[in-house]
Formats: sequence, structure tokens, C-alpha cells
Amino acid sequence: MRSVDNLARTIAAVDARLPLAARLLEELRARSLDEGGGVTRPSYGAGEQIGHDLMRAAATEAELAVTTDAAGNLYATLPGMDRATPRWISGSHFDSVPRGGNFDGAAGAVAALIAIMTLRDLGIRPRQDMVAMAIRAEECSSWFSGQHGGHLGSRAALGLLKPSELDTAIHLGTKRTLAQSIDDAGFDSVAVRRGPPLLSAGNVRGFIELHIEQGPVLVREEVSVAIVTSIRGTVRARDARCIGAYSHSGAVPQALRQDAVLATAELIHRVEQYCDQLRAAGDDVVFAIGRLHTDAAVDSLSKVPGDVRFTIDLRCQDANVLLPLNSLLQDYADEIGARRNVRFDLGKRAVAEPTAMDQAFRAVLQQQAGLLGLAAPEMPCGAGHDAAEFVRANIPSCMIFVRNTGESHNPDEYMELADFRDGILLLACFLLKMA
Amino acid sequence: MRSVDNLARTIAAVDARLPLAARLLEELRARSLDEGGGVTRPSYGAGEQIGHDLMRAAATEAELAVTTDAAGNLYATLPGMDRATPRWISGSHFDSVPRGGNFDGAAGAVAALIAIMTLRDLGIRPRQDMVAMAIRAEECSSWFSGQHGGHLGSRAALGLLKPSELDTAIHLGTKRTLAQSIDDAGFDSVAVRRGPPLLSAGNVRGFIELHIEQGPVLVREEVSVAIVTSIRGTVRARDARCIGAYSHSGAVPQALRQDAVLATAELIHRVEQYCDQLRAAGDDVVFAIGRLHTDAAVDSLSKVPGDVRFTIDLRCQDANVLLPLNSLLQDYADEIGARRNVRFDLGKRAVAEPTAMDQAFRAVLQQQAGLLGLAAPEMPCGAGHDAAEFVRANIPSCMIFVRNTGESHNPDEYMELADFRDGILLLACFLLKMA
Repeated sequence: MRSVDNLARTIAAVDARLPLAARLLEELRARSLDEGGGVTRPSYGAGEQIGHDLMRAAATEAELAVTTDAAGNLYATLPGMDRATPRWISGSHFDSVPRGGNFDGAAGAVAALIAIMTLRDLGIRPRQDMVAMAIRAEECSSWFSGQHGGHLGSRAALGLLKPSELDTAIHLGTKRTLAQSIDDAGFDSVAVRRGPPLLSAGNVRGFIELHIEQGPVLVREEVSVAIVTSIRGTVRARDARCIGAYSHSGAVPQALRQDAVLATAELIHRVEQYCDQLRAAGDDVVFAIGRLHTDAAVDSLSKVPGDVRFTIDLRCQDANVLLPLNSLLQDYADEIGARRNVRFDLGKRAVAEPTAMDQAFRAVLQQQAGLLGLAAPEMPCGAGHDAAEFVRANIPSCMIFVRNTGESHNPDEYMELADFRDGILLLACFLLKMA
Repeated sequence: MRSVDNLARTIAAVDARLPLAARLLEELRARSLDEGGGVTRPSYGAGEQIGHDLMRAAATEAELAVTTDAAGNLYATLPGMDRATPRWISGSHFDSVPRGGNFDGAAGAVAALIAIMTLRDLGIRPRQDMVAMAIRAEECSSWFSGQHGGHLGSRAALGLLKPSELDTAIHLGTKRTLAQSIDDAGFDSVAVRRGPPLLSAGNVRGFIELHIEQGPVLVREEVSVAIVTSIRGTVRARDARCIGAYSHSGAVPQALRQDAVLATAELIHRVEQYCDQLRAAGDDVVFAIGRLHTDAAVDSLSKVPGDVRFTIDLRCQDANVLLPLNSLLQDYADEIGARRNVRFDLGKRAVAEPTAMDQAFRAVLQQQAGLLGLAAPEMPCGAGHDAAEFVRANIPSCMIFVRNTGESHNPDEYMELADFRDGILLLACFLLKMA
């Protein structure tokens, strides 16, 4: 059979499954709506579980083998002829940020399921297992405070989770530890703690994640999909704080105050200015303070604020820029704190180094995009993803971006079904090539 | 009788009442403790009412005439021989900021009561009524949001309260309007609205307020009391806001973001720097952002923040500095907002011009302090007080400060009983001279 016929059959098979893809995403959306706008699917919470339940039912219906691991990650497998050959995995997460968009994560999990179904529909008997994975708790930085390294579901599956994180990651809503949250959801934190992990470089050949783009680049370039070159590293502080002293906002001379807000405003503004300089010099860096709160139990219009809590999120493609920036942040805080008679406690900063996507996989994606007639430019990825954890576990990985017309972590996030189809086609063709 | 004998009799009479003063303040403290530290006495709430109840009982016991006005201000009167002659009033407030100190306000109300009792104990038959006043809702900026001009109790008594404020001031805890809060407390908002006010320049000869100092100046100068020269004017915004747009904190290029926190940090830092320049040039100005919050229902470590709410408190002795600074604040907000593609809505700004204390009264206070052997330096007042409202109603006024060893609007606020005695002695001698 000529390859053009193969391609036509693949396209027809994907198109046959596309209504299911749309239905799964729509049902997930409808069942996890937030009254305040967008969807809310807490890690190890109800909305995330709805996604897993939908995927389990659809995979079972399609006669894929469905399993879960100790941390609750779900696997829908088209078994290979040799089960011992390292498997291929595609997947993403079902949880969301509070009042987030419907497609961040869910699109990639559904795309993986549809692509693996397509392989089965085409009658492929792959050499190794071909697996669609629904990953837990990728958005855990929005849901778990305390000490943890993020991406809890994939890191548990890959053995990257430190046992201590099971006890120090605390769910913001339920106040339960990660271990308790895993057990509450019906899984087995004891087995997570004990190991060995299910996935490793020895038993996974490669990982591919489809994800909506979380920025406006594809919209501006007017293309439906892109191939990711690397994932930005991050420095993140969840529990940064500035401690000054409360006093009367009129009666205490300014020089004698210990004003936590004025100190924090200076720190933020100086870090921003430094990042501006880095970008002007051609470096890649972005900076945000997502949460910033004086103490609502004590603060008042007429008090000098004595306490401010905030988060820090610095991201960069280049470890040689990111790591010195992390040090500079502390230097600024120390200098400003000493000068203003306040104390900055930036708390634990989680550092994730930038991760490169596999060159050979990217070449295959380019080739398949060419066959499909898709532009598919290469671009860096600004956000963290489970794919980065697979790279950290020495599993070669790659990513496909799908155009998002409304940004991300935002109720306005939106993906056209036609763009999603392009992404699933590219994913399915890639997996066919690898199967 | 020689004046030195009069002075000795006055001192003895004050000292005889001093245990009552201490007992009233201690009972008030014990009954309004906040579990989080300090005391909490909401305007038109339980803690404030405890102060009024204690004052009513003590005044009744001492055979003073006790009345209230429509807004719930309480008056303990030693009747004059001619009830039609404009009265003298001394007083202060019983409410506090959340987790505030016990003496801010309460010391002045208790001092007024003790001083009027002393006049009675000395057998004085004053020409005009001599009145101790417990004022409502001086700390209302900590308790009522929405549109209002502050100092609600004294402004109601003086006819300075606009009827609309009865409906637009909203209690932060109960969500009741000021009118409803007045009625809930057992008073008569309809009468407040209808008028005429109880107090006016025609029926009040003068007003004197004793208050703890709310800064550290008397501690540094090692004196127990001071005489106030003027009260700083204020520009206050209770509901300032910066509106940007939420987006992903990694994936959106920095230049395309609409980050409300980075914009607000720049505004705060620039206003602070400008105030530093004013002070360096010899002007008097202080600046604080007492409350600062991203939206806890939406914010997240991994989102660019799209909304920040904050308060602004600028204070200055000189209207020629304060009013241009208020304009500059808006100019800065407009410029930063346009440049960063966010929108600042600073909300209604309440402007109170600086108010001077009466020169002749200050001279009498100096004279009496000299007789008592008290240093009593003159100093400006950084905080707003009800005395400023009496001045705005064209009633000549003055203030006595008492040393506070722990700052104010703060659980660490502290006043030594010996310093309080000096303050009450000065107040009683002043009122004797005026009676």
C-alpha cells in the first residue's frame, strides 16, 4: 500500500473519532464549570476525577486495557506484540487551575486517547505497548502549598517524588497531605512511598504530550500547531513573605516605620527592571507575582502594614541566566530588608532547570507535519509540563502545541476543533511511525 | 484661697478618681480582647458599646446627667448655671481598629469623664455646661467601606455628615449601611438624617481632646504629655484598584501581559520616592498602603494577576503640598496604566485638609502645664481625630497628647498610669480655667 493511502486511512480514522474527542471535552467542561467563570478541577479533586472517569469509560468502550498506578495516574493501553519492549506514552493532565480553561491538560489527555484508539481502529499491532496516560496533579502548584516540587502525578509515576513530599505538600482546600489526598481519592500512598515507580527510562521508549499553547504566539503566526524545542526552567516561591511591624499610618515618622508593603513593592519593581534589562540584552525571562496579600485579619487603611505574603514565578530557557537570577533575588531581598528594617523570608524556592525536547523526535514530527501539509513551526515553551519530568527521568520526550485563541489559566482559553484535529493528526501519525 | 491651694485640691481630686480611671480602662480591655492580640471594638459594635455602657454607669454613679444623641454619642454633663451659655466639651472615641490598642480613643473619653467628675467633686458650679463626650465611630475607616468621609460619630453630632453617607457607608462585617448600623445599635438614623445636629459653633464654646500619641516622639523626648499644634490633613482611598488581565505566568511574553501587580508595585514605589523627595525638601508627608490584595478567589502562583485592590493613605500638615500630591497620584496612575495596558481606578478619595488647634487654648494649656511642672512641648499630630471635625464646624479646639510606649493601631500600644495622670491633671486644670 502506498504511503499516501496510509495517510488517507489515518486521517479518516482520526476523523471518525473526532466527534468522541469533542464530546469528551464538552462533557468534562459542563461537569466542572465554576460559577465564577471557567472550569475548576482541583488536583486529586472532583473535576480531575471526572476527566479520569470519562477517559476510563471511553477507553474501555474501545477495548483498550485500562489500569491505574499507585498515585492514580490512568493508562489506556493498546498492547504490543512484545510487552517487555519499552512502551510509548502520550498523555497530559485533567486537573486545572482555579477558574481555568477547559483545554489546558485535558486536550492532551483526550488527544492521546483518540490517537491510541486510532492505532487500534487501523488494526495496528504495535511492537511495544502504546499508551494513553491521564496524569494527576500537574496544576498542583495552584492546589498544594507547603514543600513540594510540583507535577506530583508524573513525578510519582517516574520515581522523582521524594517520599517527604507526600507529607509536606498540603492541599489548600482540604488541608490534607498529599499522601492523604492520594488515599482519599482511592489510591495507595504507601505504595507510592515504597516504590519502585511504574515508569523508568528502562521501560519507556519515549513520551509525547500534546498541549494547547499557553501564549498568543500561534494566534499571531496564524498556524494551528507547533513543535516545542524546549521547556522553560522555573524558580518558584509559593510562600514568600515580608515581615515588618504594624504601626499607625499617620503618626509614626516615615523613617521609623517598618513597612512591609513599601519594601515588597520595591523588591518587585527592582526584579522587574532587572528582567527587562535581561530581555533587552536578548535573554529569555518572564516574571510574575501571582498572589500578593497583606494580612486581611489585621490590615487596615490606617495601619502601616507589618506583613505581606506573596508568590514568585521566574521562568527562563537558559539555566545560566535563571540560576544567577535566583541568587540575585535573594541579594535584593537582603539589601532592601536591611535598609528598610524589615525581613524578607522568601521561603523554599523550587528550581526546575530548562529541559530540551528530543532532537530525533522533533525531526519525525517535522517530517509528519510536512506529509500532513501543516506549517508546524518550532517554538520554545514558556510553561512547565509533565513532559519536562519525563526528560528529567531520562526518557526522551517531545511536545505538540495547538493554537489557543484566548490565552491560558484563564476562562477565555479556547481551542478550535479544526486546530485540535490538526494536533491529533500529527500526534497519531507520529505514534504510527514509532509503533 | 491662694492658687497653690487650688492646685493642690485639684491634684488631690484627680488622684482620688484615678483608680476609677484605671478600673474603667482595664474592664474595657478585658471585655474587648481579640484572640489574635490587642482589642477589637468595631464602630457601632459590641466593644464600642461596652465603653459607652461603662461610661454611662460611672457618670450616673457620680451624679452627672447622661444623655445620648441620635447617632449614639454619649454626653455626661455637669450642668452650668446658665444652660443657654455655649458648653465646653471634652471627649474622644471608644471604638478601635481591628486588634488595636486599648488606649487609642478610650483614654480620652475616660480622661474627659474623670476631669468633669473632678470639677463636680471640687464643688465647682460652672457658668456653662461642662460635658464629657464619648464619640462613636472615629475608627470607621477600618469598619465601614463605601463612600463616606470618616469620623462618622462626631460628624453626625456636628451636622457635617451628608445624609447620603448614611446609605453609602457599609459596615465591612455586617454589610449593613451606616443608617442601619445606627438603628441596630438602638439609635435614630431618621433623626440624624433630618437634623438639626445637636452641636454647633453657636452652642459649643470649645472642645478639648486628650489622646495617646500615636507615634514615638514623646518616648524619644522623655516627656509624659504634649500640646498639639495642628492635625495632618489626609488623602485616603479605601477602594483603589488596578485592573489588568489574567494570563499564564510562563507562556505569555512579558510585553503582551497586563500585569496588575507589577503596575501597582511601580505606582507604590514611585509615590514613595516622590514623598521621600518632599521630605528631603523639608515638607511633612507620610504614605502607606495599608491593604493590598490580589483576588484570592482567582489568583495563583502560575497566573499573571489581573486584579489588585488596595488602600492609599497620604497625610501632610500643609494643604499646599497635600492637594498637589493627590493630583500627582492620579497622574502617575494614568501614565503607568497607559504604558502597561492596565487600568487604575483609584476610587473615591476622601480629602481632609489640615486643621490648626486654637492658639488661645494652646496658651492656656502651656500656662497650666507650667503650673503643674510639666514639660508639655508643642508638636504636630500625624493622625486624624474628632477634634479636627470640631474645627471644621468652626468650634475652637485643642488636644493633649499622652506618651505611648508602644506605638498605636497595634496591640503593643501602652500608656503608663503616671503619664495618664499628668494628662488628666492638665485637662482638668484647663477645664477648671475655662469653667
